[in-house]
Amino acid sequence: MPARPGREFFAVRTVGEALEGFLPARRTGVERIALRSAHGRVPAEPVVATEALPGFARATVDGYAVRAEDTYGASEGLPSYLDLMGEAAMGRPPEVSLRPAAAVAIATGAPLPPGADAVVKIEHTQAATAELIEVTRPAAPGEGMVRADEDASPGAQLVPAGRPLRAHEVGLLAAAGVMEIEVFERPRVAIVSTGDELVEPARRELDTGQVRDATAVALAALVREAGGEPLIAGIIPDDRAALEAALRAALRGLTPSPGGMGSDPADVVVVSAGSSVGARDETAAAVSAVAEIWCHGLALRPGKPTLLADCGGVPLVGLPGNPRSALVVFRLLGIPIVRAVGGCTEAPPEPVVRARLARDLPSEAGRLDVVQVRVASGAATPLFGSSSLLSVMTAADGYLIVDEAATGLPAGSEVEVILYT
Amino acid sequence: MPARPGREFFAVRTVGEALEGFLPARRTGVERIALRSAHGRVPAEPVVATEALPGFARATVDGYAVRAEDTYGASEGLPSYLDLMGEAAMGRPPEVSLRPAAAVAIATGAPLPPGADAVVKIEHTQAATAELIEVTRPAAPGEGMVRADEDASPGAQLVPAGRPLRAHEVGLLAAAGVMEIEVFERPRVAIVSTGDELVEPARRELDTGQVRDATAVALAALVREAGGEPLIAGIIPDDRAALEAALRAALRGLTPSPGGMGSDPADVVVVSAGSSVGARDETAAAVSAVAEIWCHGLALRPGKPTLLADCGGVPLVGLPGNPRSALVVFRLLGIPIVRAVGGCTEAPPEPVVRARLARDLPSEAGRLDVVQVRVASGAATPLFGSSSLLSVMTAADGYLIVDEAATGLPAGSEVEVILYT
Repeated sequence: MPARPGREFFAVRTVGEALEGFLPARRTGVERIALRSAHGRVPAEPVVATEALPGFARATVDGYAVRAEDTYGASEGLPSYLDLMGEAAMGRPPEVSLRPAAAVAIATGAPLPPGADAVVKIEHTQAATAELIEVTRPAAPGEGMVRADEDASPGAQLVPAGRPLRAHEVGLLAAAGVMEIEVFERPRVAIVSTGDELVEPARRELDTGQVRDATAVALAALVREAGGEPLIAGIIPDDRAALEAALRAALRGLTPSPGGMGSDPADVVVVSAGSSVGARDETAAAVSAVAEIWCHGLALRPGKPTLLADCGGVPLVGLPGNPRSALVVFRLLGIPIVRAVGGCTEAPPEPVVRARLARDLPSEAGRLDVVQVRVASGAATPLFGSSSLLSVMTAADGYLIVDEAATGLPAGSEVEVILYT
Repeated sequence: MPARPGREFFAVRTVGEALEGFLPARRTGVERIALRSAHGRVPAEPVVATEALPGFARATVDGYAVRAEDTYGASEGLPSYLDLMGEAAMGRPPEVSLRPAAAVAIATGAPLPPGADAVVKIEHTQAATAELIEVTRPAAPGEGMVRADEDASPGAQLVPAGRPLRAHEVGLLAAAGVMEIEVFERPRVAIVSTGDELVEPARRELDTGQVRDATAVALAALVREAGGEPLIAGIIPDDRAALEAALRAALRGLTPSPGGMGSDPADVVVVSAGSSVGARDETAAAVSAVAEIWCHGLALRPGKPTLLADCGGVPLVGLPGNPRSALVVFRLLGIPIVRAVGGCTEAPPEPVVRARLARDLPSEAGRLDVVQVRVASGAATPLFGSSSLLSVMTAADGYLIVDEAATGLPAGSEVEVILYT
């Protein structure tokens, strides 16, 4: 007979409490990687410039390098006449110093000759003779050029620590000659599936009552999105001893085997629990043998049967058995935990769209509701159905959150929808 | 001497015209990959279910499987009494059929016994004796359960073609036993850098006038974000023959070499041109030898010296020489082109935030302006500086677009900022 309800949720917390109180202190180690692999990785320390960038005063327009003072008062009617001293070559040190009342032809990107402090655009000049140009507009010092340290001074911060590297930050590091960078190691996230009803996705023929494990592979994808390395530990029966052994193995690390887990211990453990209350009891019992339970039950729907525990500094997230509930909880709590352990202090922004609710949305006060929605023409239509149905999620464009204080939202409310990518 | 201006921009187009008129018909081939690698890949065809999911009627609550009609009229005062016939096992076919006026104990996820059409929550029951339960609330048919095909019927679409696979879609495919999937191959994007001033990022000591190639590695990161495979072809001098040879090599494909390009031809060619007008002329000449030029110049700032060309069906994007301009143009045009060639018809949404402009923003009508901005407390502050400075982009949280019709935006205008991730 099923157990009586109520007993298991002895320490229900809100999602906000969990995000604040359960975020682990643990950080992965630091590794040195090549710049070409650094996009999206999290720098362990700010990276600073060791030299000035671009390293030399550089033209930003095609024209003539000049002394600005030689052009003061120049106009169409009364141009400044400057001797043409030659051309600044691209990519090579200047061969001449600029004399007063002279100009050097220069292309965008070329180094200014010593003595020059501005570049006159070619549009503001005319050739008078082969050796003389007319400047028809004055140039201010610094015009048409960048200084030697305008992109970065020596010692300036190029990229901050704790934020996943953006494409253009990788570019700036390349410009600075930074070919290797110290980043946090990817958190190793062990994914343990339990449930007597579960079989491997590769199983072709199912008996009545069996379902393929949909959660592990979807969690693995979300772990990678969060910058982690998923370690799929496989399916464990709803048996306390078997699950406890699997958890200990994940925490200790395993000898590498083909397709199996590597040798390092997990930084985060995720248990996708069985769906029945009996299976959840077995999971809680196995977890409490290896960890200190921080909460058992979240004021969240779907996602109430969530368990958070601390295994000597390694966070453990026990997810509900329904795949959709498991993915909702992992998005809300698992991803922030994986990011935090991986040293990320500034998570990338998520795509969000505002829309008007197409119908009334009931909700209980004191519980955070995650509602799958379709969005079209500015209207968000909630999709309902059992939390055991993944198809409700695959039909959605994103989800909205009804927070604990709300007792439902009327049709027409403006809502923010977090879009799936 | 520099060339006279104006000549080179013989076919200036707007960004909108380019997005509409230049998007290529080319698509990569189709490959079959394992589901575990499918996250973010683009299905070539919709994937349909070959069997019902979950495949059996399943309890979604802990309680008792019943015939709904046996509970009609049940209340606290006048409960329905049902014979307890045993328990439905998790993961195994039911052993008994449900008799009228009977119940089978069942846990969430277990298969309903034949004859049952509802599950009464345990909260709505009481044990009368060991063999008899009281049901205190009526259950409607279908309550507390999902049907055998409620997640998917045979033949139902599981995931659409043309949209990068989301984590939960990978989960649904696993549930359906789809272990391999046909996806578009990643577009091979050759990245050719030109410019006499450029040296490899690994070069430690620079001569005055030399700069490290910041663009190629940043473009490679954006190509991966767009689902492509970057092929960094290296730095080619500003020389028509050398560049033409490099373009032909990229289009033809090369014998694989360590760290070099593989053997397949490129699906997209990106040339990061030299910054000077002379270098741009050389690039245009080399491109016109291998391709038909579609436009030379965009009504865009930064990014005017952009060149779009068609090499017998392979799109070629000639980017401006300044790294920041190059990355702006690649985000606006290159990413949509790479996605299109890779079969993506529905691009993932981007994170966007609304903010108030912190100061007046000048802009010329007829030209689209991309402005780097910082966003804090709902205010967007434009960052200015030469388009040769990557640091203006690394200091920004995102960018906003002032479209061709606008002649600037006053302080306080509501703007949408596309955030960097």
